[in-house]
Amino acid sequence: MSSPTGSSDQSAVTVLGLGPMGRALAGAFLDAGLRTTVWNRTPGRDGELVARGATSARTAEEAVAASGLTVVCVVNYDAADAVLRRPAVADALKGRTVVNLTADTPNRARDAAAWAAEHGIDYLDGAIMTPTTTIGTPDAVFLYSGPEALHRAHRPVLDALGGTHTHLGTEISRAAAYDIALLDIFWTAMAGYAHALAVARAEGVTARELAPFARGIATILPPLFERGAEDIDNGRYADGINPITSAVSTMSHIVHTSEEHGIDASLMRAAEGLARRAIARGDGTDGFLRVVDVMSPH
Amino acid sequence: MSSPTGSSDQSAVTVLGLGPMGRALAGAFLDAGLRTTVWNRTPGRDGELVARGATSARTAEEAVAASGLTVVCVVNYDAADAVLRRPAVADALKGRTVVNLTADTPNRARDAAAWAAEHGIDYLDGAIMTPTTTIGTPDAVFLYSGPEALHRAHRPVLDALGGTHTHLGTEISRAAAYDIALLDIFWTAMAGYAHALAVARAEGVTARELAPFARGIATILPPLFERGAEDIDNGRYADGINPITSAVSTMSHIVHTSEEHGIDASLMRAAEGLARRAIARGDGTDGFLRVVDVMSPH
Ligand SMILES: NC(=O)c1ccc[n+]([C@@H]2O[C@H](COP(=O)([O-])OP(=O)(O)OC[C@H]3O[C@@H](n4cnc5c(N)ncnc54)[C@H](OP(=O)(O)O)[C@@H]3O)[C@@H](O)[C@H]2O)c1
Ligand SMILES: NC(=O)c1ccc[n+]([C@@H]2O[C@H](COP(=O)([O-])OP(=O)(O)OC[C@H]3O[C@@H](n4cnc5c(N)ncnc54)[C@H](OP(=O)(O)O)[C@@H]3O)[C@@H](O)[C@H]2O)c1
Repeated sequence: MSSPTGSSDQSAVTVLGLGPMGRALAGAFLDAGLRTTVWNRTPGRDGELVARGATSARTAEEAVAASGLTVVCVVNYDAADAVLRRPAVADALKGRTVVNLTADTPNRARDAAAWAAEHGIDYLDGAIMTPTTTIGTPDAVFLYSGPEALHRAHRPVLDALGGTHTHLGTEISRAAAYDIALLDIFWTAMAGYAHALAVARAEGVTARELAPFARGIATILPPLFERGAEDIDNGRYADGINPITSAVSTMSHIVHTSEEHGIDASLMRAAEGLARRAIARGDGTDGFLRVVDVMSPH
Repeated sequence: MSSPTGSSDQSAVTVLGLGPMGRALAGAFLDAGLRTTVWNRTPGRDGELVARGATSARTAEEAVAASGLTVVCVVNYDAADAVLRRPAVADALKGRTVVNLTADTPNRARDAAAWAAEHGIDYLDGAIMTPTTTIGTPDAVFLYSGPEALHRAHRPVLDALGGTHTHLGTEISRAAAYDIALLDIFWTAMAGYAHALAVARAEGVTARELAPFARGIATILPPLFERGAEDIDNGRYADGINPITSAVSTMSHIVHTSEEHGIDASLMRAAEGLARRAIARGDGTDGFLRVVDVMSPH
């Protein structure tokens, strides 16, 4: 074990949590020549990392005492809290920095930051938007929120993880809010794709036959997302091309075809329900993004 | 009115239905120098087209008698049937060709083709995958299914609509099946984007702030769709990177954040429900596309 270092030391880092992502992070720190201390709840996950030069800590408190900066990456904040919120660990972290790259909700980020402040721990929240394979490469995308000075101070070490590192603001919840919103887009789209494949299959169309056209649809989304963002922020809902009434007619065709084949249409039923509520409110000639208002509390 | 022409005449075409799309189609035919006859249920929609050289028919039967090829583009097959399935129109269409570019379900396409066969009408089904603004440009995307010889015979006229024209197979329902599956992807993704914007807004993140990252998410979808298609067709579900158990944890964060803000989470609840059913079946270590099986009847 190396001896404790102040938070300005840029040569040491601790990683708590050695799942696929924690291991990828620790590996990138090692590749960058940083003194890397690792710990995981279940022992024995650090064999490869130790062989590459990592120091294996026996306890979380021992691990955090080894570096000015501790990166946490466990499954969720229940797990992160279970690791961090013990007196021995909180004591050892006093005056040091935690960058929490664990994914969870904005509320959990706010709660963790309050706990850290109470214990004299510098705290930055973060989110990793790309898979383990991108870590250490230019494709990695990291989002941060919390004190800007803290982000600046630790940026040299975090840069060892590769890719882009964006500080989204001082409000601690912002990284989690972006993470949630972006994963919302991602997983809803994947669920829609899965449903499309199920319907296509029932109609004798293979996934591979559909693929080039599915790619075409995916390709038109980014500019539509961008135009929609402008419209929403400006309170403009009439896109002039695709009124909700037309969208809902398409949606009902999808639901019917799906249910004729006995395929679960709950996802499209939910989307159709939102569109129908917009029409019932008298917004049928608006573009589909009017449903943002329908979804939101009044 | 020009006199009736045989189905091999490549210089005349009739358009039934003058909504935004029907008008765009007729306009492209006129631009290509074709003798274009138009009709719409509600009169008075053809003023601009007539000014550009179109012939206005007083009845649908008069319109279809003017050309060997009639293109139908109305709101749905209830409307298309209301226009076509009258004795006078069916008689006038005998020995001629209908290309139905109206969107509806595969079942409706099958039903319409059976009706056409009974009445000695050559019938091709089609779907338009791009907005009116693309018609007559290289960006337009048309899908067709039905007799291949029929598609080949009328291809020179249809080419006047610009873009790509793909014949998907002789099974009449294929164009509608692709259409439904692709619009399923599109509208589910748009609904997910709307939900993400609602959650972001509730967390103080504007649509414009989120937009560049949303674009990033949309950009990673096409290759994931393509890889997923290969896997599904090969019955491979273990993507090794993102087990369903991990997806479901993310999904529950999204649902919680959404509902904490009083935002309707029905869409993500539906997706989460499918993922949980996959886990309950014992498929939790598979990739998310395993839900294709969960959705489908057994
Ligand atoms: N994998 C990716 O591609 C990816 C991409 C972006 C973001 N992320 C995020 O990164 C984080 C880590 O993901 P991951 O892929 O490494 O795997 P994971 O399965 O999400 O997390 C595994 C880690 O969590 C630990 N853990 C679970 N419950 C715990 C508890 N009660 N107390 C202490 N530790 C506990 C595990 O320790 P044990 O070994 O003892 O169980 C292990 O270290 C997650 O928040 C994930 O959303 C991952
Ligand atoms: N617009 C697009 O960007 C787009 C893109 C791809 C595909 N499509 C498809 O193209 C088709 C036409 O769309 P659209 O945009 O032109 O507008 P639309 O609003 O879907 O359809 C309007 C047309 O349908 C006619 N119609 C409605 N009910 C009728 C009935 N009972 N009998 C006879 N005619 C009836 C209307 O005639 P009246 O004027 O008499 O009401 C009008 O000609 C739809 O299937 C749509 O899904 C459109």
